[in-house]
Amino acid sequence: MINIAKPTLLLDEQKCKTNIRRMAYKASENDVSFRPHFKTHQSLEIGYWFKEEGVTKITVSSVSMAQYFAQEWNDILIAFPINLMEIDQINQLAGKINLQLLVENIEAIEFLSKKLNHQVGFYIKIDAGYHRTGVDSDNHDLIDQILQKAAESDKLSFTGFLSHAGHTYNTNSITEILKIRNDENLAMLALKARYIADYPKIIASVGDTPSCSIADHFSGIDEIRPGNFVFYDLMQLSLGVCDPEQIAVVMACPIVALHKERNEMVIYGGGVHFSKDVININENQVFGQVVEKVENGWGNPIPGMIVKKLSQEHGIVHLSDTLKDKLKIGDLLYILPVHSCMTADIYSSYLTINGKTIPRL
Amino acid sequence: MINIAKPTLLLDEQKCKTNIRRMAYKASENDVSFRPHFKTHQSLEIGYWFKEEGVTKITVSSVSMAQYFAQEWNDILIAFPINLMEIDQINQLAGKINLQLLVENIEAIEFLSKKLNHQVGFYIKIDAGYHRTGVDSDNHDLIDQILQKAAESDKLSFTGFLSHAGHTYNTNSITEILKIRNDENLAMLALKARYIADYPKIIASVGDTPSCSIADHFSGIDEIRPGNFVFYDLMQLSLGVCDPEQIAVVMACPIVALHKERNEMVIYGGGVHFSKDVININENQVFGQVVEKVENGWGNPIPGMIVKKLSQEHGIVHLSDTLKDKLKIGDLLYILPVHSCMTADIYSSYLTINGKTIPRL
Repeated sequence: MINIAKPTLLLDEQKCKTNIRRMAYKASENDVSFRPHFKTHQSLEIGYWFKEEGVTKITVSSVSMAQYFAQEWNDILIAFPINLMEIDQINQLAGKINLQLLVENIEAIEFLSKKLNHQVGFYIKIDAGYHRTGVDSDNHDLIDQILQKAAESDKLSFTGFLSHAGHTYNTNSITEILKIRNDENLAMLALKARYIADYPKIIASVGDTPSCSIADHFSGIDEIRPGNFVFYDLMQLSLGVCDPEQIAVVMACPIVALHKERNEMVIYGGGVHFSKDVININENQVFGQVVEKVENGWGNPIPGMIVKKLSQEHGIVHLSDTLKDKLKIGDLLYILPVHSCMTADIYSSYLTINGKTIPRL
Repeated sequence: MINIAKPTLLLDEQKCKTNIRRMAYKASENDVSFRPHFKTHQSLEIGYWFKEEGVTKITVSSVSMAQYFAQEWNDILIAFPINLMEIDQINQLAGKINLQLLVENIEAIEFLSKKLNHQVGFYIKIDAGYHRTGVDSDNHDLIDQILQKAAESDKLSFTGFLSHAGHTYNTNSITEILKIRNDENLAMLALKARYIADYPKIIASVGDTPSCSIADHFSGIDEIRPGNFVFYDLMQLSLGVCDPEQIAVVMACPIVALHKERNEMVIYGGGVHFSKDVININENQVFGQVVEKVENGWGNPIPGMIVKKLSQEHGIVHLSDTLKDKLKIGDLLYILPVHSCMTADIYSSYLTINGKTIPRL
């Protein structure tokens, strides 16, 4: 029995390993390269669980993460538009490992041409409809300019096209996710077809957890980079792309007050413990979902028991009628976080349900 | 000139000290005791700036914060419903300093009666209309029961009534804030009047930054506990309770991509750097506001330049027409955070605009 006195992020090692194994198997079965995104777990130790499944290359989203994982990994993609201000750190990394960068404009490629001291690979970031960032997939002029500029440098080699269909997170159905994924794949394959003659080794890389989780094939795509699947969370559950038993992390929070007259309780666990990411379920804002506590772990969501508000340190949980007279002050609740990437980022370690501490960046 | 390569929380020491001095002066002028909330800054060093203004007692919102500040402070209130699971830490603190706790139910006071090893003071938490937690101000039965139970213990002494009018944060005008504050004060003074005969030394303590900032008197209130005013932020600015030049922290974030065709740019700076607290301004979601960079600090907000979306590491900023051709990739933006308490909580230190590192919990 582990001893928890304050808000704590718990990890179910077996669920996590199963998630990793399943995605690695899916990639292997479909003959697609697996470059998982490590921004979700940010842990060298969890990284070993990927190595056990044969993973040899990874994705991160900052230079800091790349520096951390370069202790153990030799092939790292920083899937974030290059931050010119970190060129010294990029050069250090490029001297040590096989570094892959993300380019989406002329300024960055010109800057790299001048400043790089070592060989790096680069992907061109394609905007496949999410419109966060990237080159529009039909903007061949800009792609041509980037490639031309890169060709003038002996330090830059073109790896391929990369997209992230983050808009799958804003969908309401599996059909919508599949539609987005299909559009993304078509755009990526068209680009690859257009440039393959000049660059015979280029690849097409895609990567969000929703589409990688529900996909049963990856027609023509060369590489996948999902990240969140390592833990999943309430958002993925509400999208319908995972089952409750796949969610590998929960927040453990003590109950500090009961307000039965308004069907509420107060937990020690606020925005600084969960992050303030929120989803809408049945027109209610939801910041977390209470699950059953079972022997050595957790079970299914308890209907109605949602976190409906978060202050800095307080969480307000809806108290269902069935549990009104069972829960008491001092009890510990287990709560699925809305967005495990954001919640995990708050902590410097995980506590496994077996009581082991697993450090992270 | 300070060197910033990635998202960094900057502190203007002079603005911060002026905020502290002003609130300490207001408390002193109005003959009200000042027990500032330290959950916003969580820094021993910033604590010294309060000591310079004569502050001798403080408020925090967790046992962990109390342990940290007990290194330097001898009178600490943990203004959070008691977490029974931390009784050992509470006893350790109570043996070392003058500890004040917050009680709002029979379970907690019974538990304390049994488990305390040292003298503590306690406030009864009153719900003055915010409905997050606390005893309804007209629930005299529960207050009587709590006091009766406390009287049976030789470890518990009743300090007074405490409220936090957090609903001032949800208002649209100074008039509304003043109305809430007036209702809160009346409720608190009525309670004090009812119990003062039996407890001649009890006090009434209130504490949100909006009402303490705009108040010009504290009629009958004995103690104030504002916290956020030490930095202020975009939320306070939009409530109208501070001026832009009072905001003492900004996020410094590099620009990594420009998408002029849709008036957007991408910064390195996401939810893990800002927190995902959000406000609505003119029906737009706003996660931050770009300000002018001036010699040795920052100036006024730049109209229209708001952070409109945050992913884990990316921020999307609206690019105003006037700056469209001036800003370039690699530039550093200064951005007012929406909620400085939540943003500061992410960091283990502040960087002052003079280049000094100030550690925090």
